[in-house]
Amino acid sequence: MIKAEIITIGDEILFGQITDTNTQWISTELTKIGIRTTRKSSVGDNKADILQIFHEAQTRADVVLITGGLGPTKDDITKTTLCEYFGTELYINEDALAFITDFFAKRGREMTEINRMQAALPRNCTYVPNLWGTAPGMWFEHQGTVFISMPGVPFEMKNLMTHALLPKLQTHFQTPTIYHKMIRTVGLGESFLAERIEAWEDALPPHIKLAYLPHFGQVRLRLTATGNDLAQLQAETQAEVEKVLPLIEKHVFGYDDDELETVIGRLLKEHNATIATAESCTGGYVSHVITKVPGSSAYFVGGVVSYSNDVKINELGVKAETLAEHGAVSEQTVIEMAEGVRARLKTTFGISASGIAGPDGGTDDKPVGTIWIACAGPNGTKTRKLLLGKYREQNIQLTATFLLEVLRRQILG
Amino acid sequence: MIKAEIITIGDEILFGQITDTNTQWISTELTKIGIRTTRKSSVGDNKADILQIFHEAQTRADVVLITGGLGPTKDDITKTTLCEYFGTELYINEDALAFITDFFAKRGREMTEINRMQAALPRNCTYVPNLWGTAPGMWFEHQGTVFISMPGVPFEMKNLMTHALLPKLQTHFQTPTIYHKMIRTVGLGESFLAERIEAWEDALPPHIKLAYLPHFGQVRLRLTATGNDLAQLQAETQAEVEKVLPLIEKHVFGYDDDELETVIGRLLKEHNATIATAESCTGGYVSHVITKVPGSSAYFVGGVVSYSNDVKINELGVKAETLAEHGAVSEQTVIEMAEGVRARLKTTFGISASGIAGPDGGTDDKPVGTIWIACAGPNGTKTRKLLLGKYREQNIQLTATFLLEVLRRQILG
Repeated sequence: MIKAEIITIGDEILFGQITDTNTQWISTELTKIGIRTTRKSSVGDNKADILQIFHEAQTRADVVLITGGLGPTKDDITKTTLCEYFGTELYINEDALAFITDFFAKRGREMTEINRMQAALPRNCTYVPNLWGTAPGMWFEHQGTVFISMPGVPFEMKNLMTHALLPKLQTHFQTPTIYHKMIRTVGLGESFLAERIEAWEDALPPHIKLAYLPHFGQVRLRLTATGNDLAQLQAETQAEVEKVLPLIEKHVFGYDDDELETVIGRLLKEHNATIATAESCTGGYVSHVITKVPGSSAYFVGGVVSYSNDVKINELGVKAETLAEHGAVSEQTVIEMAEGVRARLKTTFGISASGIAGPDGGTDDKPVGTIWIACAGPNGTKTRKLLLGKYREQNIQLTATFLLEVLRRQILG
Repeated sequence: MIKAEIITIGDEILFGQITDTNTQWISTELTKIGIRTTRKSSVGDNKADILQIFHEAQTRADVVLITGGLGPTKDDITKTTLCEYFGTELYINEDALAFITDFFAKRGREMTEINRMQAALPRNCTYVPNLWGTAPGMWFEHQGTVFISMPGVPFEMKNLMTHALLPKLQTHFQTPTIYHKMIRTVGLGESFLAERIEAWEDALPPHIKLAYLPHFGQVRLRLTATGNDLAQLQAETQAEVEKVLPLIEKHVFGYDDDELETVIGRLLKEHNATIATAESCTGGYVSHVITKVPGSSAYFVGGVVSYSNDVKINELGVKAETLAEHGAVSEQTVIEMAEGVRARLKTTFGISASGIAGPDGGTDDKPVGTIWIACAGPNGTKTRKLLLGKYREQNIQLTATFLLEVLRRQILG
């Protein structure tokens, strides 16, 4: 197994001033070519700290990927520190200089001495052209470890990796094959899921590992198979998926990159069906989740956010007696909301939610977190009562997940 | 200067399958209490790697903050590895067990043996109750270094830090006094803002530092004053705020933790006013932003998400001719949407958005990112055309920010 470490250099990440999206992307891409990230580290713009992490990483890893600290300003010291680490010096690389000169000329911008110095590279490096910016990529081989230095700008780094460095890594290391399969479940907590599939998990072959990734009412089960033959790994993993599926089938909504809202979008399109929403406590969040999917206008017609009782009555046709008798947070109300929006917007399905999102507004009878949801469709209306927690945003997000899950099952019939 | 290292444990972060938002948040909060993060590391669910990073961090840092690997399932090994590192063993902590038992009882859920084992803690730890989940917080002191172990679920970790661990760190390390004041602006880009306040910034006393924190159409200006006397730092910072305010007054919507939607909520309540939304391209997101504020039912009446033209016509009263003549993405349409929802839901203000969120659907005339917004109120209807970028989610979020800002100025008159 080829081991990689990723090192991010820069005070701005260390102090929390910018979000580091690079390391997640890099490790995902390395995984795909069978290189395992074994550590990620961030250090500041400080020579001693950078030298130390270079040294540590070299003793552990086959390849060390470094981002950041290549800008033209004084606080960017990656290049001089690489020179010190490798015991070499900077020189002007003519290919890099020609590229940078051309880069500025094409944009009609003047090139300063600071820009010219971006063509200065450590003598022991292989120059990797960065066609997307002025900080070159660099490849080093040192005492059996590959060091790669890249700019921190995500757009430049990603292009450099995709078009030059990932292929170079695949050639350099003749890597074992890793295959990942993600099973995406909803509606069953991590520990209940774990108990239900315990015997299956214990019987997994040693080269297939399982991980639980829980997130807001969903749990992703990730299978990671390591070997030499991709087709064989895929077949073995698929066999395991088929063994576990009968135990949790009702809860599996998709695989790999599937999201609940994209799966629902696909299902609605397949069934030539449309959807409308009637939201009280979720306040538009369910509509937002559905419509953040590109192309959702093919099946999402619209929705009503009915915070006040008047809006429930006038815009959704909820009966005043229903509200008076059962209250806004009741099974009867969400039924009338879902059926009302479905009739009014002429859609195949209508979904609704009404509850007490919190933090205030609870009663002994209906404490904070009491939420009713409904889905009206061609085969009738299905309801569910949720008893969630005290936290407003979490209640809103969980309600959306459970409501979309009720809808998914209704579409499947 | 107290030095901190942050360690994230879990294959899912190392392999890039989930986004780590914890370390950025933790380092930002540590900075606020005067603790400097000097390194961040991620390692997998692998005992040898975890032991090694614990050892390294201890030689360098005053405090080591650890997240992740505390779940109830088999792949989470942080607790047993902590035991091995400290040379101790797990025992059932009665306080932790009582809390977990109660946690499940309150939710009417059955507690499994796996859940019970979450109350098992290393003997040398101080138990820090996690009121937001079932994985306890832990505080260790070992050879002069503080080790803190927290769950990786961001919501639980943040609450645990805010309510228990940050105060405990301040007491333990007797950190210097730091006072932060945040000025929150909207509608002026970072570089324009910087030019406008350059002279003021250059004249700041050396113990007051300024940082620009841009985020989705907003820029936060963070003043950080360091010294010994809190009252004096507050007075000095306030004097600087009063100097800069006249330069940027129109763009300042609040201070510190103020969010645009909470400020608008306060303003609406003060003016005894109500609001309704009519959303096309934002798909419910504007309503969601308004209603995620606790107590928003006092001023938010409801909204219509009008994705289809039929819904615009039937539910909002947009004229068919308007749509035919100007298109759904037009000034005339957003005016009729805002005025329509205001009349129909009988509110003081009505706000609307219609545009091409992307990634598809653009034309030469109206490229992706073309979005019209409107705010109708007692003093007429104000509109604005936005020319945003290519990215759907970003366009939706920016539109919400600009629309709320138009509303804010309309309320202020």
